[in-house]
Amino acid sequence: MKVNFNPAKGMRDITPQEKEVRDYVEGVIVSTYKQSGFELIETPVVENIENLIGSKGGENLKLIFKILKRGEKLDFAKEGLTEEELADLGLRYDLTVPLSRFYCNNRASLPAVFKSMQVGNVFRAERAQKGRYRSFKQCDIDIIGDGTKAAELELIATTAKALTALNVTNFVVRFNDRRVLKSVILNCGFSEEEFDGVCIVVDKLDKVGLDGVAKEMKEKEYSEAAILQLVKALESINEKGTKCLAQYGVPEDVVSDVEEVLNQAREFAGGKYDVEFDFTLIRGMGYYTGSIFEIAYKDLGYSIAGGGRYDEMVGNFIGEKIPAIGFSIGFERLVNQLMDEKFKVPNLDKVVLLYEPSDRYIDVLKKADELRATGCTVAVYEKAKKLGKQLNQFADYGYSKFAVYSGQETEVKDLSTN
Amino acid sequence: MKVNFNPAKGMRDITPQEKEVRDYVEGVIVSTYKQSGFELIETPVVENIENLIGSKGGENLKLIFKILKRGEKLDFAKEGLTEEELADLGLRYDLTVPLSRFYCNNRASLPAVFKSMQVGNVFRAERAQKGRYRSFKQCDIDIIGDGTKAAELELIATTAKALTALNVTNFVVRFNDRRVLKSVILNCGFSEEEFDGVCIVVDKLDKVGLDGVAKEMKEKEYSEAAILQLVKALESINEKGTKCLAQYGVPEDVVSDVEEVLNQAREFAGGKYDVEFDFTLIRGMGYYTGSIFEIAYKDLGYSIAGGGRYDEMVGNFIGEKIPAIGFSIGFERLVNQLMDEKFKVPNLDKVVLLYEPSDRYIDVLKKADELRATGCTVAVYEKAKKLGKQLNQFADYGYSKFAVYSGQETEVKDLSTN
Repeated sequence: MKVNFNPAKGMRDITPQEKEVRDYVEGVIVSTYKQSGFELIETPVVENIENLIGSKGGENLKLIFKILKRGEKLDFAKEGLTEEELADLGLRYDLTVPLSRFYCNNRASLPAVFKSMQVGNVFRAERAQKGRYRSFKQCDIDIIGDGTKAAELELIATTAKALTALNVTNFVVRFNDRRVLKSVILNCGFSEEEFDGVCIVVDKLDKVGLDGVAKEMKEKEYSEAAILQLVKALESINEKGTKCLAQYGVPEDVVSDVEEVLNQAREFAGGKYDVEFDFTLIRGMGYYTGSIFEIAYKDLGYSIAGGGRYDEMVGNFIGEKIPAIGFSIGFERLVNQLMDEKFKVPNLDKVVLLYEPSDRYIDVLKKADELRATGCTVAVYEKAKKLGKQLNQFADYGYSKFAVYSGQETEVKDLSTN
Repeated sequence: MKVNFNPAKGMRDITPQEKEVRDYVEGVIVSTYKQSGFELIETPVVENIENLIGSKGGENLKLIFKILKRGEKLDFAKEGLTEEELADLGLRYDLTVPLSRFYCNNRASLPAVFKSMQVGNVFRAERAQKGRYRSFKQCDIDIIGDGTKAAELELIATTAKALTALNVTNFVVRFNDRRVLKSVILNCGFSEEEFDGVCIVVDKLDKVGLDGVAKEMKEKEYSEAAILQLVKALESINEKGTKCLAQYGVPEDVVSDVEEVLNQAREFAGGKYDVEFDFTLIRGMGYYTGSIFEIAYKDLGYSIAGGGRYDEMVGNFIGEKIPAIGFSIGFERLVNQLMDEKFKVPNLDKVVLLYEPSDRYIDVLKKADELRATGCTVAVYEKAKKLGKQLNQFADYGYSKFAVYSGQETEVKDLSTN
């Protein structure tokens, strides 16, 4: 059999060196969240396909990995087969849809306001490209059952704290509200049906500029008058911020909500990072209903965390009104950036204990356990003929000390001085 | 849309209480393995389907979750569609096949003897039943590149150590060798082709007894003479252990290998757990080539860890001889057993800080951070009208202390004395 050793397209293997960094980063994030009272839960990577397809996942719905039915349920004899008839399960494309299902399923045993944390891989069959994978890790915190601004503030403050704990400081929090977007865009003369399409163009403002936005809107044949209004609004909001929102039809209470969150979040940041209102922040998920926000690297421009309010998803499941809001760290981008910066995990002593084939192995293992009792890591390997070369290799693998087994006389030495 | 809140069949949600136990157990296992010099790696849950189908996974190959091709690759127009034409990916059914592929893919950057650790979920479309899931976690350690008995001994000693660190002590290590099985079974007069089938029946000895085994073999129409021989051999091995293996055609060097591992492993155990030779230990995977072993709960009978030598899998991939051996803890069974025994995770102080809607939220958050600086967990929640009831709930969720926000005067009290 000819075997392809590469991981499947868009998937990847994680080597010990990278895994060490990843686990350290995950550990810092999880302990920051845990200390703030968020509770870890776990949901399966495989979900019933109806729950995925039926969610408002926007473009992500096109990227679902679907799992073939099994056994008798898989009927090839049927004419005109479709994907729907062939697949009954799918891999999750985010952690929010599974969380909503989880909450509905386990509500009886959860507190009225549930602060949840999830860390896990999600799957999207995107066109694979450098730095973009089809399976990637997300670290989410969500608050279900709290419709007040306290939830926005806690999520933003806690996510920023997790990044700060990793010495990531050069970032900016961007904040917007779907209700602001909707009011302004409709106020300019676009229709409800045009709203999503207009958002997609506005999202490109920082890449293509105002002229580019206007040009693309004309190509898409939106009303000239509405385009003109929107360009004016974009200029004015860019200049004056939230102060001018009321004149574009945004209700007073929405404006004051947005300003209140911005003010308190800024105060909590205490100048360590910026908190900005950004009308061009869109975020693709159709399930967002209010605040939307992200954290972006200041210099690099791209976002490392994103989230928002999705007050209708959980409620729709069970026919009640249940507010919900979440913030998700894109773990891969964060780790990639840290790896690029040659991030080093604080290291413990790693000792390699070498033995000869003639040594009784169990005696060697006992000696290793004796050394481990002092708290260090001790790996046991057979001594190579070329000891110097072998020791250099272990130094490369991050070992700092070595010992050659010789019973009671076994002595631990620094690898640098061999 | 009518929504089913249950996880997909055979999958499950993990609540905060269970997650806490699981993470503690995983943490103890991983740190034990890490301290012994095993290096954590990660492989994707999704593999190219050829690599799964082409592996010697025995019965597990029938249980693979297959993923539908996407886009143009999925051609419904074709006549006589088969699963092979529809699926290009699958979910891994164990961690050993991905590890072998990983090793071949990353060999250049790995040490000559690679001691690997993997923790992750595997997927098998088994008939769902109580306590048996279609997605479950395994914790594997493997040694690739060491063909000596040192590898058997280190895996057994280290896995036993991880269990002991969790205060699981009432277990027994069972040890056998595929070469012993083969020699004895062929020596009794069975053919090479009959070997796997005979093993399946011998596997049932502890359930159906010697008579049951003989009866089932007769039903399967094996040679009467061979059956008679095998029954005698089973009796004799049961009585005399490894001492009588030579007379059933097991080569001297295999017998002495087995005895040597048993002796040294027993010595390392130091009476804390038993290490037994068990000729009826079979283990289903077709890829095992030498030693096979498991750890079972003494009273409960079922196994919590299993493994063996698979000297041909990695080598076959790249056309070289590369010895390999692994030991896998069945995480779910271990956790279920600990949960049944009301296992308690060593707990840190958890404080709930309550606020009124009239408090400025960011001041509350700042106070929470002050309290966290002492190392405890502080969760922030709005104060309910019925404070007593609310505090009782938090006590149920594992909180030990509470405070009602009142600026500088905020005072932390014990929950038990509210």
